[in-house]
Amino acid sequence: MPEAITIAVDAMGGDDAPSAEVEGSLQAAREYGARVLLVGREDELGKELRKHGPVPSAVEIVHAAETVTMNDNPARALRSKRGSSIRVAAEQVRRGRARGLISAGNTGAVMAAALTVMGRIPGVKRPAVAQAFPTLKSAWTLLLDVGANVDCSVDMLVQFAVMGDVYSRVLLGCENPRVGILSIGEEEHKGNGLTGEAYPLLKRQPLNFIGNVEGHDLYSGKADVIVCDGFTGNVALKVSEGLVAAIKSMLRESLEATVVRQIGYGLAKGAFDDFRTRLDYTEYGGAPLLGVKGGVIICHGRSNANAIKNAIRVAVELEKGGINQKIERNLERSLERV
Amino acid sequence: MPEAITIAVDAMGGDDAPSAEVEGSLQAAREYGARVLLVGREDELGKELRKHGPVPSAVEIVHAAETVTMNDNPARALRSKRGSSIRVAAEQVRRGRARGLISAGNTGAVMAAALTVMGRIPGVKRPAVAQAFPTLKSAWTLLLDVGANVDCSVDMLVQFAVMGDVYSRVLLGCENPRVGILSIGEEEHKGNGLTGEAYPLLKRQPLNFIGNVEGHDLYSGKADVIVCDGFTGNVALKVSEGLVAAIKSMLRESLEATVVRQIGYGLAKGAFDDFRTRLDYTEYGGAPLLGVKGGVIICHGRSNANAIKNAIRVAVELEKGGINQKIERNLERSLERV
Repeated sequence: MPEAITIAVDAMGGDDAPSAEVEGSLQAAREYGARVLLVGREDELGKELRKHGPVPSAVEIVHAAETVTMNDNPARALRSKRGSSIRVAAEQVRRGRARGLISAGNTGAVMAAALTVMGRIPGVKRPAVAQAFPTLKSAWTLLLDVGANVDCSVDMLVQFAVMGDVYSRVLLGCENPRVGILSIGEEEHKGNGLTGEAYPLLKRQPLNFIGNVEGHDLYSGKADVIVCDGFTGNVALKVSEGLVAAIKSMLRESLEATVVRQIGYGLAKGAFDDFRTRLDYTEYGGAPLLGVKGGVIICHGRSNANAIKNAIRVAVELEKGGINQKIERNLERSLERV
Repeated sequence: MPEAITIAVDAMGGDDAPSAEVEGSLQAAREYGARVLLVGREDELGKELRKHGPVPSAVEIVHAAETVTMNDNPARALRSKRGSSIRVAAEQVRRGRARGLISAGNTGAVMAAALTVMGRIPGVKRPAVAQAFPTLKSAWTLLLDVGANVDCSVDMLVQFAVMGDVYSRVLLGCENPRVGILSIGEEEHKGNGLTGEAYPLLKRQPLNFIGNVEGHDLYSGKADVIVCDGFTGNVALKVSEGLVAAIKSMLRESLEATVVRQIGYGLAKGAFDDFRTRLDYTEYGGAPLLGVKGGVIICHGRSNANAIKNAIRVAVELEKGGINQKIERNLERSLERV
């Protein structure tokens, strides 16, 4: 039996912390054979753990007295709260006590902790947050960056493409990922200054580059990996979240309007649940932060135990798939072509 | 009875041209008392018109021998095809024969024709395309620019805010529009270089400025007007279109999976139709191009007769509401505050 992979879980981060983190960690230990370091206030975590019966040896508490809140300034909180759960969790990875890290806390603080405590993979200019979108063809399209870097340079976009390509192969099972650049028209000349400069560079890369794609291609299945600056990517992600919420709410209103429709809704409910699951990103274990030393998964603040469990699974798979070694190697090859 | 307002309709533009344009124009003449100049090949338009019986005096054909296609380079086609329907339609407005223009043709060509033939309102740096999104609160949120200007300067964003504010008051019935800037966090410091510079300038404007809003606020009803650069806006619009299409398709698949669900679907169908209508932008008559002399409505290439009719209605309302005079006046006031 291969040695279990250890993941550090920031147990104080999410809206439902620490109960979602504790329950998700116990599930991940049981279902995937993962080892988990639960990082947070010892007394609180102990009490929460004991609610679930005898504590398995695969789950261990690492004490951290402080917490970075959603209202904290990330960089400042990371410096002033040296005993914060996110910082202590990142230190577990730096010291080799864990191979990856997950957190449903302040996203900026997770990125700052990963960057300053764990550090970047050699050759990486800036890490990027990648988000997988479900497509019509039952596959996934990976968009990056969705928020780590608001103003991007051309070579950052090229690196995002290389990292996204590796992630798509290793984690999403895509054999030869089609890589596109997010723009506002298919033709090479359509786009802004950044996309116009990035296009010829991407063409020279050892990637299956398919050129410009558009906003609707997040869901069309035309590309497996789409790169963009973190400002545009974050807007695209949040527009999607807002629209899904709006559609759910509009449908609910419409369906409550008459008794006949209510009966219809009752009969069609299974379909709604299918569809909600396919669009519910929290079901899929958060978004990886690519480019840092160790697997980092950023979870939604609203993560439940299931989301935490899935995030731990993805962090384990990142390590098993050797994603960071592959990113480092491919970035070296990429540099030869820029 | 007030004098009828005349709108020039590029009758050769859309995927369904000229039949959708002709039918929509006849409906608009009948329902709104609009006068319509149908611009395109005389023989073809005459034949199409006669299919609908006697031609009313409010609908007149203006001959244009050429057509700009979706594959043409807009600027080049506008120069080389001087007899194109979009150019001739714009000339009707410049010469005072019509007060507005609608087209479902090549969007770039519509913008180029409006800009070069009709010209800008005094004080306007660049026109912007505005798109109204339906919100949870049964109101509309106007996003601009959604594609006319890929790289925007700070003062362009300020002008978009002024123009959007006027449009929201005049066309969307909003008394004191809440104006936001699209960014990736609510706090003033969150955003990219452009939004960071625009924020303090917008704060000084005589507008109801509410600060940064995020992607999900396109649908939340938090703002009535949201400004952004045309690259980001175009991505936001196309992500929305793609997601609506994906959801429709996923729901259809799910609903066909079992007989019980099919029955449920039959009963709930009214609700789906409601919801589709609320999200179907083509129902609402296209997107205005704000900042040019004359009311210009850019319609979706797939526009049907109903969409054309609605676009003509909006073009008439722009003129009736005196929107361009108001934009000119408010831009003057705005300049004093920059």
